[in-house]
Amino acid sequence: MSSNPAGHTGEHPANGADGLDDPSDAFDAHDAFHVFDTTLRDGAQREGINLTVADKLTIARHLDDFGVGFIEGGWPGANPRDTEFFARARQEIDFKHARLVAFGATRRAGGTASEDPQVRALLESGAPVITLVAKSHDRHVELALRTTLEENLEMVRDTVSHLVSQGRRVFVDCEHFFDGYRANPAYAKSVVRVAHEAGASVVVLCDTNGGMLPAQIQAIVHTVLDDTGARLGIHAQDDTGCAVANTLAAVDAGATHVQCTANGYGERVGNSNLFPVVAALELKYGKKVLPEGRLREMTRISHAIAEVVNLTPSTHQPYVGVSAFAHKAGLHASAIKVDPDLYQHIDPDLVGNRLRMLVSDMAGRASIELKGKELGVDLGGDRELVGRVVERVKERELQGYTYEAADASFELLLREEAEGRARRYFRVESWRAIVEDRPDGTHANEATVKLWAKGERIVATAEGNGPVNALDRALRVGLERIYPQLAKLELVDYKVRILEGKHGTESTTRVLISTTDGQDEWSTVGVAENVIAASWGALEDAYTYGLLRAGVEPAE
Amino acid sequence: MSSNPAGHTGEHPANGADGLDDPSDAFDAHDAFHVFDTTLRDGAQREGINLTVADKLTIARHLDDFGVGFIEGGWPGANPRDTEFFARARQEIDFKHARLVAFGATRRAGGTASEDPQVRALLESGAPVITLVAKSHDRHVELALRTTLEENLEMVRDTVSHLVSQGRRVFVDCEHFFDGYRANPAYAKSVVRVAHEAGASVVVLCDTNGGMLPAQIQAIVHTVLDDTGARLGIHAQDDTGCAVANTLAAVDAGATHVQCTANGYGERVGNSNLFPVVAALELKYGKKVLPEGRLREMTRISHAIAEVVNLTPSTHQPYVGVSAFAHKAGLHASAIKVDPDLYQHIDPDLVGNRLRMLVSDMAGRASIELKGKELGVDLGGDRELVGRVVERVKERELQGYTYEAADASFELLLREEAEGRARRYFRVESWRAIVEDRPDGTHANEATVKLWAKGERIVATAEGNGPVNALDRALRVGLERIYPQLAKLELVDYKVRILEGKHGTESTTRVLISTTDGQDEWSTVGVAENVIAASWGALEDAYTYGLLRAGVEPAE
Repeated sequence: MSSNPAGHTGEHPANGADGLDDPSDAFDAHDAFHVFDTTLRDGAQREGINLTVADKLTIARHLDDFGVGFIEGGWPGANPRDTEFFARARQEIDFKHARLVAFGATRRAGGTASEDPQVRALLESGAPVITLVAKSHDRHVELALRTTLEENLEMVRDTVSHLVSQGRRVFVDCEHFFDGYRANPAYAKSVVRVAHEAGASVVVLCDTNGGMLPAQIQAIVHTVLDDTGARLGIHAQDDTGCAVANTLAAVDAGATHVQCTANGYGERVGNSNLFPVVAALELKYGKKVLPEGRLREMTRISHAIAEVVNLTPSTHQPYVGVSAFAHKAGLHASAIKVDPDLYQHIDPDLVGNRLRMLVSDMAGRASIELKGKELGVDLGGDRELVGRVVERVKERELQGYTYEAADASFELLLREEAEGRARRYFRVESWRAIVEDRPDGTHANEATVKLWAKGERIVATAEGNGPVNALDRALRVGLERIYPQLAKLELVDYKVRILEGKHGTESTTRVLISTTDGQDEWSTVGVAENVIAASWGALEDAYTYGLLRAGVEPAE
Repeated sequence: MSSNPAGHTGEHPANGADGLDDPSDAFDAHDAFHVFDTTLRDGAQREGINLTVADKLTIARHLDDFGVGFIEGGWPGANPRDTEFFARARQEIDFKHARLVAFGATRRAGGTASEDPQVRALLESGAPVITLVAKSHDRHVELALRTTLEENLEMVRDTVSHLVSQGRRVFVDCEHFFDGYRANPAYAKSVVRVAHEAGASVVVLCDTNGGMLPAQIQAIVHTVLDDTGARLGIHAQDDTGCAVANTLAAVDAGATHVQCTANGYGERVGNSNLFPVVAALELKYGKKVLPEGRLREMTRISHAIAEVVNLTPSTHQPYVGVSAFAHKAGLHASAIKVDPDLYQHIDPDLVGNRLRMLVSDMAGRASIELKGKELGVDLGGDRELVGRVVERVKERELQGYTYEAADASFELLLREEAEGRARRYFRVESWRAIVEDRPDGTHANEATVKLWAKGERIVATAEGNGPVNALDRALRVGLERIYPQLAKLELVDYKVRILEGKHGTESTTRVLISTTDGQDEWSTVGVAENVIAASWGALEDAYTYGLLRAGVEPAE
């Protein structure tokens, strides 16, 4: 993809004579292989996802930034939100790499494509590319579509030719293709042939129910390619846990168009995950499918999209998960010191991720030493010190703490053991939080803290939109005069995990807080029998660490 | 597996003459194919998992109940917890199907197996089967093990023959086999050959770094089988997102032993997931690898193991996830009415899961009607009513509610629209929660509620171990006299989700509560600007629904 430098300035699609220009000529260079993303259409079917138009625009920008060739934006006409998305995307987004795709269906049985309102809405969306979903399984034609097999072929032929005659590029998604092929291979192939002959530039074989395995996919794609001569794509669902492998199996058999979703979002189990598919093509097949330099943005973009759809990024996602290159086994930790490449299938830098050594009671000394090194705390091979840290970590983990996701709390613990005493900028006498539901349905949240800092006793009260927010504000109000550095700190994430969930509200609660000073971000942990007390523990560590980072001398 | 009926009574292994008897003769019948579980050893390496001996015993019982052939319990001798596990498992568990496996390493370089303390600990564990990890990648031998290639072969030969001479069955895990094969195929194969000749009954090819793809695995397993004649197994890690497919690819190439972990737990991204592998073998390959009737327990056992390791079950896990057979697309919902088999790759009953219709603003009328039917609320094709429900759901989802995971709150909403008014057993005037941290480090949590029920004004106060617990108690104290049915209700799960996480503690909070009356369990949702107010909303719904279920007439 050296012909498609990241710095290439694409032309705004809406600026073309007919609004249908390619966003860039570099685009054509990678038309030989299509990375087609359908997060905004099929991915949005995932349980728990509900996207606004603004969300969709943000995700489209991230996908374009990542460098996919096609972004399927939704079904204009069928859904007012999708209609609005296409209108706004054309106005607001200056796509660098991707072309926008509208999704729709073949015309109704018995009509004509040129007069079908659903087909017209696809044209009116202004998208240069249209994906048409077509039935290719004989039973679906008869039972769901309730028409004849012959009329279904006519619907494909008519709709594809009409859209092509209007200057659109057309891809045809053959829904339930693999189940259909197994039931009636001749009919399934005839749908591919008709779509191809009518001018579809790619015919996409869809494993809609997701029940296939790679060997089956490979054999069928191979045969269909031989028998029809159509350019083929693959759309896999993950119901057997094989969507990524199924996608690659189709590529092995000659498919040159892969439909995926960011983070594998999709209905039921999900769709083929864009990130491991692209990473496998680039790093394992040596196939350039992204513009130069974009693969290194993969981890960031994966997490950014998770944030937009409001799902916690999967920690164990291949390549991009925070655990994807994390090692905790003592056995590995000592060997990683010798050569990290012996224990990693790729350099995590290539996908913008990083190697992490986990602190855990399974890890032992080698990991603690490596972790100390990573944090810049020299343990100097002091066996007794390392032993004490291992003991403290074990003991705290038993109570419910976790240091794997709370580097800053771990560093405070490490420094306390290394320096012989805890860093303390303030001492807490007591605090109180009150939440009150008033008869008018509004809530009052008030917190009071009583602290000692630099020899002074401080009592501060603040209100907030919740008890933790009120405590956070009271703490700042009390301390900001003495430690003005606190003004820069901002809480950016707050996670609550209930441990031992069997006892309902009588559980132990763990809170993880992420804090930033505008440059870096750090995580701290608090554990207690209730969410407020646990939050307080994480807040105390967050501010202590922030002051430590700012170079402030402890003065309790 | 008709020769291995579920009712077969196995003999206690510890009761055998030498403690090494097969647990059952039925076991031998499925020795032709091994389902080998390593959740307790390799799975425990997952970030966030930390198992006690009691946890391990519970998981071993679940795995045996599921019907796996082998359970790798840990590394006795290397870890005191694992030593204790083997001692207690032999005493406390009467395995019906599985045999216990101890994991360990080949002897040290330069010594003899019979005098090696680590090897002795494996024998002393009493496990009838031992998995030995052996190096098969030349660079790992030289850099990590720091011995010669020839001595490594000698270590394999000596350790395998010694353990076999002591009456143990030995499996050899060739660590980093695939990377090793690509670097030096002759050496990698010589390790397989030596292990086989020394008496190992299976040689397991491990993709330790997880970087392989199915086509590579298949080709290499095929060649190694041809060249060595050894019985081969596969151990795949999921770093490319292809562990399940890699496991199946090895089976396609002739491997007859698959190493997996429950829910795919394992280091970094994880291991090959036991459940989709077993489901594919049983349902897609038609290969009986579990005792009769056990596959239907898969969903339950998957969730039970997640509970023991204290991780939320993955909602999107193939076959067993709560979303695995959930449909929300309006398109699908209407067609599912016609024939569910058109839209499912298997009948969810086969794996103990079920079809679910999701309530979401994408779903539209067909889903709401189906959902009403599922809940036993007849919407009688009342188009206007269904339209009102769709509108209410959309509006509430915009505020942050989710009904996909809160059936009881949805049913209350549905009944409110169908019956024209909300079910109300009490009216809330106000409430207040106070959390106080005292100078001695303890916390006081107190809540007061002011309610109206059956025309009476009630003021009740209670303490709890946290503010939500205190509110829960105050509500019960206040209402139990009027509604004695509340005494039976118990909160069994409590989940907090922070929405719009960008603003730290200033976010919207969603709380999901699960409640049981001892027979059934239901979920309710609350959304508010802070965790206490959101919890209150979910509590109100939980009790209202509990009273509704108990057949109590509303009397505000």
